[in-house]
Amino acid sequence: MDANTAIRNDARFGSRIMALADRLAEWSEMPGGLTCTYFTPAHRSVAAEIGRLMREAGLNVHSDAVGNVVGRYAADNPAARALIVASHYDTVRNAGKYDGRLGVLTGLLVAEELVRRRAKLPFHLDLVAFSEEEGVRFRSSFLGSSALAGRFNPSLLERCDEDGRVLADVLREAGLDPAQIPALALRPDALAGYLEVHIEQGPVLLEEGLPLGIVSAIAGSVRCMVSITGAAGHAGTVPMERRHDAAAAAAELVLYVERRCRQAPTLVGTVGELAVPNGAVNIIPGRCQLTLDIRAADNAIRDAAVTDVMGEMRRIAERRGVTIESREVQRTKAVQCSPRLQAVLADAITRAGVAPRRLPSGAGHDAMMFDGVTDLAMLFVRCGNGGVSHSPREIITAEDADLAVHVLLDAVLHLAEAR
Amino acid sequence: MDANTAIRNDARFGSRIMALADRLAEWSEMPGGLTCTYFTPAHRSVAAEIGRLMREAGLNVHSDAVGNVVGRYAADNPAARALIVASHYDTVRNAGKYDGRLGVLTGLLVAEELVRRRAKLPFHLDLVAFSEEEGVRFRSSFLGSSALAGRFNPSLLERCDEDGRVLADVLREAGLDPAQIPALALRPDALAGYLEVHIEQGPVLLEEGLPLGIVSAIAGSVRCMVSITGAAGHAGTVPMERRHDAAAAAAELVLYVERRCRQAPTLVGTVGELAVPNGAVNIIPGRCQLTLDIRAADNAIRDAAVTDVMGEMRRIAERRGVTIESREVQRTKAVQCSPRLQAVLADAITRAGVAPRRLPSGAGHDAMMFDGVTDLAMLFVRCGNGGVSHSPREIITAEDADLAVHVLLDAVLHLAEAR
Repeated sequence: MDANTAIRNDARFGSRIMALADRLAEWSEMPGGLTCTYFTPAHRSVAAEIGRLMREAGLNVHSDAVGNVVGRYAADNPAARALIVASHYDTVRNAGKYDGRLGVLTGLLVAEELVRRRAKLPFHLDLVAFSEEEGVRFRSSFLGSSALAGRFNPSLLERCDEDGRVLADVLREAGLDPAQIPALALRPDALAGYLEVHIEQGPVLLEEGLPLGIVSAIAGSVRCMVSITGAAGHAGTVPMERRHDAAAAAAELVLYVERRCRQAPTLVGTVGELAVPNGAVNIIPGRCQLTLDIRAADNAIRDAAVTDVMGEMRRIAERRGVTIESREVQRTKAVQCSPRLQAVLADAITRAGVAPRRLPSGAGHDAMMFDGVTDLAMLFVRCGNGGVSHSPREIITAEDADLAVHVLLDAVLHLAEAR
Repeated sequence: MDANTAIRNDARFGSRIMALADRLAEWSEMPGGLTCTYFTPAHRSVAAEIGRLMREAGLNVHSDAVGNVVGRYAADNPAARALIVASHYDTVRNAGKYDGRLGVLTGLLVAEELVRRRAKLPFHLDLVAFSEEEGVRFRSSFLGSSALAGRFNPSLLERCDEDGRVLADVLREAGLDPAQIPALALRPDALAGYLEVHIEQGPVLLEEGLPLGIVSAIAGSVRCMVSITGAAGHAGTVPMERRHDAAAAAAELVLYVERRCRQAPTLVGTVGELAVPNGAVNIIPGRCQLTLDIRAADNAIRDAAVTDVMGEMRRIAERRGVTIESREVQRTKAVQCSPRLQAVLADAITRAGVAPRRLPSGAGHDAMMFDGVTDLAMLFVRCGNGGVSHSPREIITAEDADLAVHVLLDAVLHLAEAR
């Protein structure tokens, strides 16, 4: 069939996506809000529901040793390559309903439409709902996608969550065999590409009045855990000039990160966690802990900022007589999206009557894991409410979701024609 | 007897105080350290032990409706006034062993010595171990001393601890009647004065090589709970210039407090609690909470600093587009110690062969509650380890403790002679 036919008259995709996102948000670890972290009961329920939806859509479904749910719309040729359409179903704490899940649901509706049309594709379409991307429970992102991309780090299996539960044990208790994870790695010559739809999580498309955008590159982030040790003391008896206040040292660092990361385009730096452990109103903080996240669409710009922040840490420590320890816990390099797949998405957007806007992604995404494994591209969907994400205020419109399904379907069908 | 006899040859007081402080530190809410907050099981055990020690010393002992333990060495005349010798037995979290308890134990050993000598005094000596001074569990200091001084605020009975337990219920479950607390107020015409021995909790005596000091005035503190609300957002997608980062606003405030409180002698300002609730490495902080403690030996100096800090809060809020709410939870005025009682302590210190150093107290003490109720004075004991307090590293020497007992005993006997 002609991929450019008038499927636009039917907006049922959009309303269905909104309803399904609401449905998936019913399972949560917190009352009155959405939290769904790796292998909690809520997370297992969402996985089961996604599997059910995929089966109802007519896909061949399995879930794997790391908790990914995979539904295949198979090509006639069993030896065909697979086009991956994927995103994640875990969330941050007190999350929005679309971050991650929008990509799973747009892929689901495209698959349903392919089944309905009995479309013949020269590749398998593998719809993958990744089990973990946000890094909340075990402080390591991309557990699901790294496994399929052959980048899973087995040492992570020994990590503990905040309750001291070990990742490998959590998987075993769920009836899975962590030893099988390395074997999940997909062979590059078995892949036809990787497509991911995701909410933008920023204000660019909203401000430009565009429903969709094509990601040009994904910023790479450096993350550190920083621990500052000064000297605790009585808030009333230690003169200001004799203090070694760990929180004051942290405050200097927070403001330096902010100042330094204002100095280059696409560069951003965030202290997201900040705490004085066992602090009290009348005690000078002897310790302060914080996290650091620095990223840019260009590795060199980012690394220069990281170097400067580390230098400032040393200066603060020396000036204040405190100890500052920084441990790098993640470093991902910036990833360029495939020009070929970007063009396929841009053509589909143009056919939908929308200007094809390319923009970098400041957020990390599962797609990054497939850099060097297969061609990858991402479609961004406009984020409402000023671009807020990682918040219950995260919102999209049904119209934009509808357009995303149509454009993804169009792109898949054109990729099929091109092969 | 002559108060100036050679009791100095016997250093058993010091070693006994060290042993008793160790003994009281055996009851704790935490493993491997000392935490003893209001009406926990550890706190009840310490109260029972203090009562036992007082009874063994030969005092008439009772505990009251707010948990104070009172031991009387009675004058022959039942209508005599009472000289209060007091300090507190609760602690901060992960505390030292001497803050508060040193005053109870020096008083105990003085009482034992009075009993041993069958000393005749023209006043009752009431040794009081106050149940609460640090304000940890219910965020209100001086629960014990405020009751005896007639300054107990009944609305505090409705306060909850972190587990949601109400203060009045906690007392009732311990078999006490909170309605009896107002009746604990002592009549000024029944009092002969108030003396408190306390570890200095600062470095002044240590640096000057002096074992003891006389407190001239006690700084008054203003305490506030500050809550900053900005806008949460994704750490990768919100450009630096569009952020309303609550932690960055807090950082500015922390550094302003530090800078401003360097500008006058005896003025100190502390942000002791600092936290981003539910923070995560990849989320721009939408909220930040902190506490503020500002004090000085002079109310005007302190209040000028508080006014400037509040002004800076407004400027930070406006500049950053965040909301900053500050709630004042405590305001105590600076208290001047009695010149007469200071002179009695100074004379006793001089007789012990030590230079009588007067110094202000930056820390608040139970003594403050008796301002306007009776004459009050305080004896400071040198703090080791650079003057650190509110820490397991808080330390005194047995020799200094011994000297404190001798000087307090001498002062009590001279007060007796003077009446």
